[in-house]
Amino acid sequence: MQIHTVPTPAALIEIDKLRDNCDQMLEHVHALGSRLRPHMKTLKSIEAARLAVDPRHGGIAVATLNEARHFFEGGFKDICCAVCLAPEKFEMAARLAEAGAQLSFFVDSVALAKAVVALGARLSLWIEIDCGEHRTGVEADDPALLEIAGVLREGGQTLMGVATHAGHSYACRSIEDIRSVAERERLLAVRAANRLRGGGFSIPHVSVGSTPTTVHAVCADGVTEFRAGVYMAGDLVQSVLGSLDLNRVAFSVLASIISMQRERHQIVVDAGGLALSKDRGTMATAHDYGYGLVTDLGGQAAFGDLIIADVHQEHGEIRNVPTHVFDQMEIGGKVRILPNHVCMTAAMYDRLHVVNTATQSVVDIWQKTNGWS
Amino acid sequence: MQIHTVPTPAALIEIDKLRDNCDQMLEHVHALGSRLRPHMKTLKSIEAARLAVDPRHGGIAVATLNEARHFFEGGFKDICCAVCLAPEKFEMAARLAEAGAQLSFFVDSVALAKAVVALGARLSLWIEIDCGEHRTGVEADDPALLEIAGVLREGGQTLMGVATHAGHSYACRSIEDIRSVAERERLLAVRAANRLRGGGFSIPHVSVGSTPTTVHAVCADGVTEFRAGVYMAGDLVQSVLGSLDLNRVAFSVLASIISMQRERHQIVVDAGGLALSKDRGTMATAHDYGYGLVTDLGGQAAFGDLIIADVHQEHGEIRNVPTHVFDQMEIGGKVRILPNHVCMTAAMYDRLHVVNTATQSVVDIWQKTNGWS
Repeated sequence: MQIHTVPTPAALIEIDKLRDNCDQMLEHVHALGSRLRPHMKTLKSIEAARLAVDPRHGGIAVATLNEARHFFEGGFKDICCAVCLAPEKFEMAARLAEAGAQLSFFVDSVALAKAVVALGARLSLWIEIDCGEHRTGVEADDPALLEIAGVLREGGQTLMGVATHAGHSYACRSIEDIRSVAERERLLAVRAANRLRGGGFSIPHVSVGSTPTTVHAVCADGVTEFRAGVYMAGDLVQSVLGSLDLNRVAFSVLASIISMQRERHQIVVDAGGLALSKDRGTMATAHDYGYGLVTDLGGQAAFGDLIIADVHQEHGEIRNVPTHVFDQMEIGGKVRILPNHVCMTAAMYDRLHVVNTATQSVVDIWQKTNGWS
Repeated sequence: MQIHTVPTPAALIEIDKLRDNCDQMLEHVHALGSRLRPHMKTLKSIEAARLAVDPRHGGIAVATLNEARHFFEGGFKDICCAVCLAPEKFEMAARLAEAGAQLSFFVDSVALAKAVVALGARLSLWIEIDCGEHRTGVEADDPALLEIAGVLREGGQTLMGVATHAGHSYACRSIEDIRSVAERERLLAVRAANRLRGGGFSIPHVSVGSTPTTVHAVCADGVTEFRAGVYMAGDLVQSVLGSLDLNRVAFSVLASIISMQRERHQIVVDAGGLALSKDRGTMATAHDYGYGLVTDLGGQAAFGDLIIADVHQEHGEIRNVPTHVFDQMEIGGKVRILPNHVCMTAAMYDRLHVVNTATQSVVDIWQKTNGWS
């Protein structure tokens, strides 16, 4: 099956690029002397997880309990649900653990730790540390850190260790800045782990990561695992940040041209706000790609800096199309669109069309999970 | 089942408000002497369509052929797929028509009209007119208008009429501006229809609409139907635009509090960029609601102007939480979030939890369709 016969809009993943991205990340993390726990919230596909998983580790990270169940049913055991779960979710977590999953999740408050203990089941927890993103997590120096660990120990829970996520690396505008955020991510996680150890707690694992800070980490001292996900597929934000080159982006959206208005220098495709997501992650960067970069059917940026300037629910608008580009297009013709933020875009699709980069043929279709239950 | 027992994140629809919004719109359009073709791309639910459909019309609009099939299987016959379809979709359209659907869709170019004719099946088409949004559609005065009609007639196709959508009404900042866009939407559609009639074509239907222009239309002369969808559920954008009051918004996302960091004056819920969508429709308006307005479990804006300031994939961040509000919240507590743009947010859910406004209990669960195939 050739790409141009796939009904649009569709999510394509180039298997060769995906494999290379996975292999390069493993090599990098191993060279640092650490291990990788790939985050599967990006592609939510069991086949992708098999390519990404670190043979020296075996575990994965996910962002919802629905994903945890999906990957457990797909054969994965060591699953870290890398978020603070609402107490209503604890029972489902306990059921997965009873069924044989080594399921763990985050807590970042005494109240949440007490809610875990109140359930009466034995669960596995990470204390989440805030290393500067200020989203969730306690500060490494917060007295609550030892209090949380105490509540969990008293309650007979398993403390996996500490975990942090330098999501603020996305705001960096240079590799040097990312390196500095990465180093601070590591230092604060290690400091929190050492404070807990000093308090008499056993902290076997120290987990850090985001794609930019993992790619640019130069030191992993004290870090037992990196968590990252976007690197597998790549996207425009990662390309702008310097996490990977544009030609290593493995994910794209296939779209059909449905309207061409020459006087308005305008082309419209059938991939809009739902097919691309409304993520505008490159907006505040040095290279604003609108809602995505338009490439040819082979995934090459053959049209220069042609972007999706605006989206409606099922329409993507390409504006100011140069005449020589307009003349290469036709109604019903296909383009591929690289997304700003692959996690948001991939989530709009139930399946991935797996493409061989060299032959541009569809070699497989991978089912994904989505949603929350 | 009470709302607080629904697993989060979840999509709630208040049945009483939905019904009132539907009834009020029907009354309004009938008072104008016209009819309504409700657009089901917003809720994608058969039950919602049954409440919204105009007994004087019977038809609906949709935005994808997947939706068309879903509603046809749900008992709807007259289905207008209100987009220019890619030629690869014509066969599926023809199959639906053969199965008994009165399926129609848009064309806005001679090339697309020729592609329709080339299929060899008899399809039903609307010529799409651009009334100022400059997305798709030909100008009312464009010579191509008669050319497209000629190609369709020559090819034995059924010309339903002309259709236009004043999507640029969303950029209006006053009711007066919306009225003026609405009047221009009507005038240009009627002008295109009359040009075609003058050219010897029969134009039985003239279809216009967007929620703002339909709500504020004061004249329907020459208009045989209005198409609108968002009005059923409502959202923050429509509230800011003056299409409906905030207390008539029927859709919200139920979320759980998963993190509270008092020193950072911050609360985090388990509804993030996927559960809310990354639509920032109110950003450039007089009232920027971030990624959504946080209300209490009863849907009341009890916390003042508390908004989701930032989202990550599965996290929604409420920042600068006043102490008296912080003190009302607890880990595991529930809030409801009104979305910027309900079409984008509802599309993230496979089902709607139907809520009785007075008792705040879940009275039904409606399945939805999503995706493209």
